[in-house]
Amino acid sequence: MRTAITDMIGCEYPIVAFSHCRDVVAAVTHAGGFGVLGVAGRLPEELDVELRWLDEHTGGRGYGVDALIPRKVEQVGASGGHVPEEHRRFVADLLARYDVPELPADEAERVRASAGRADAMVARASELWDVISEHPVTMFVSALGPPPADLVEKAHAKGVVVGGLAGAVQHAERQKAAGVDLVVAQGSEAGGHCGEIATMVLVPDVVDAMDGTPVLAAGGIATGRQMAAALSLGAAGVWTGSVWLTTQEAETHPVVKEKMLAASASDTVRSRSSTGKHARQLVSAWTREWEDPANPDPLGMPHHSELIAEAKARIGRGAHVRGSGSEQLVNYFVGQVVGRMRSVRPARRVLEEIVAEYADTVARIERINAG
Amino acid sequence: MRTAITDMIGCEYPIVAFSHCRDVVAAVTHAGGFGVLGVAGRLPEELDVELRWLDEHTGGRGYGVDALIPRKVEQVGASGGHVPEEHRRFVADLLARYDVPELPADEAERVRASAGRADAMVARASELWDVISEHPVTMFVSALGPPPADLVEKAHAKGVVVGGLAGAVQHAERQKAAGVDLVVAQGSEAGGHCGEIATMVLVPDVVDAMDGTPVLAAGGIATGRQMAAALSLGAAGVWTGSVWLTTQEAETHPVVKEKMLAASASDTVRSRSSTGKHARQLVSAWTREWEDPANPDPLGMPHHSELIAEAKARIGRGAHVRGSGSEQLVNYFVGQVVGRMRSVRPARRVLEEIVAEYADTVARIERINAG
Repeated sequence: MRTAITDMIGCEYPIVAFSHCRDVVAAVTHAGGFGVLGVAGRLPEELDVELRWLDEHTGGRGYGVDALIPRKVEQVGASGGHVPEEHRRFVADLLARYDVPELPADEAERVRASAGRADAMVARASELWDVISEHPVTMFVSALGPPPADLVEKAHAKGVVVGGLAGAVQHAERQKAAGVDLVVAQGSEAGGHCGEIATMVLVPDVVDAMDGTPVLAAGGIATGRQMAAALSLGAAGVWTGSVWLTTQEAETHPVVKEKMLAASASDTVRSRSSTGKHARQLVSAWTREWEDPANPDPLGMPHHSELIAEAKARIGRGAHVRGSGSEQLVNYFVGQVVGRMRSVRPARRVLEEIVAEYADTVARIERINAG
Repeated sequence: MRTAITDMIGCEYPIVAFSHCRDVVAAVTHAGGFGVLGVAGRLPEELDVELRWLDEHTGGRGYGVDALIPRKVEQVGASGGHVPEEHRRFVADLLARYDVPELPADEAERVRASAGRADAMVARASELWDVISEHPVTMFVSALGPPPADLVEKAHAKGVVVGGLAGAVQHAERQKAAGVDLVVAQGSEAGGHCGEIATMVLVPDVVDAMDGTPVLAAGGIATGRQMAAALSLGAAGVWTGSVWLTTQEAETHPVVKEKMLAASASDTVRSRSSTGKHARQLVSAWTREWEDPANPDPLGMPHHSELIAEAKARIGRGAHVRGSGSEQLVNYFVGQVVGRMRSVRPARRVLEEIVAEYADTVARIERINAG
């Protein structure tokens, strides 16, 4: 297969796999797709460890990195005192009602230290690019809005392709104005942060507005039929995420993995409850509690994450106990394709099945026209 | 082109056009597509007039009818006293705040009579099929849930194909159990009543669950690229609606038509404000007022329609005045594809453009695979 994307980033199939798990990134890249490691929240030295591992496990093929490199220090950072008492009380009460156990002292310390290092991360954000540039990264994706101008310049000087995400045409136009080489048009059915426009409508709208800049379709894509649909809509390839969460390689929380395997397309919700911004995720007691009009609304970003960081750690730790409140609360970001994630398989096999079904689909369409 | 649908309902292209406007139905049917007339709310003698006209204007080709034939008298009907005083006050206050003019006495009488005839319509519902069966209708679609068993039997005895709409796999399974011959899988991006699952995810899920029963894809389809995507997902054809609302033939309110031509994909909302059930429609002051948490929630169906029938008639009448409150309030059902509806064209030309772009898309996909 050959599209503007396969030529641009150098891969056999125009299938990009986003994952926070380096094993998934390596497996997909090895199998002819293109893995992108999500590394938001890592310090430069941590990022270097991850990328060194990838260098050793991708057999010399290029891979991608999706990172948060803020334009200014003010963009992100600890909120300090912006969390209302009402919200703190609600979260404390929620954890008590669901009988969520406390963290052991050392783990609690680690969670608090991690939340408290936001300022350090922002201060050292510019070092992230220096780390990335020492590795065979062939695509860089800016995780929060258009990338800063100096970063685009540095990336292009190294021959690195820059990508940006968009949930509406006007976002895509801002990304293009910032100098990105490709745009990921992400529909409302996608897992994680997403807008309100469905992939079926968003992709052709973005393709037409981009006037030649290649577009990857994201949201609702986990099979070869969906890949063929995305290419029909004018995308030069697909950006997948959810489908890798239940692969053998994925480090998804085991209880969340089970919930995903059992879920249908109706079991996700676009909710502000986990980051402060609308993000599609598994329905659980956590999303139901926050959606209840009797309870406070989620805060904005990043204050909401600060509010819930320790709660999420406690829930994750307690969820292993069958029948526990933590088990009811635990969830994670995932798109509506969760209904197709029915068994745990190696990432390579998932990729091969997408490719095989894609070929079958194209053959079927050819028969329709010959008929 | 040949799919399970073209064979089943007898048309050149697997493109079904749903419209309340007989001129659109005739134009599409004449041009090789398949028109379906939406006739919910018509009495048997009114339906007969519409179908007689269609018989004369479709050149002997079969067409479809989408009607509401309730299973039991209790299913629909006037609510009599179920509208809370708070809601009546809110609507009266809303009309006053937006300075919406009263109806002339005769029109007010007509609107009230129409609202009051719900009982008569239900009592005479069984006559609707008798009317339909006297015309060359080749497909009947049940507008509200699975069709009654006796109706399916009568339709099949006459060789009429029966279709049913579904917004989730379990709805499709209920339709199939009721004996329908095809299912319309309608995604969340569709205009009018819709569920929460996007077309990209819903269609393959329904296709797999139907095990051979043909599926039409609905929601997000207004172009040949979107049609090719729908067929890639496994649909045997497409069910379109919104795209016909701005055609030359459509009797859409002229101010609404202008709003649609100016709207983007971001200008629709899935709201209960116009029927009591979630239906996608143009954002307007009407949807914003009902979505405001300070105002009462919409009632259920059919009480909400009873509550707002006269208000909607007043708004439609007043909307012709530039700068009026009625102009701000007026809206109508439409899907996210509204952003692609940029000019008023004859329905035949819209169909021809879909077919031409479909052919271009298939050729482009073939080039990708040859590359």
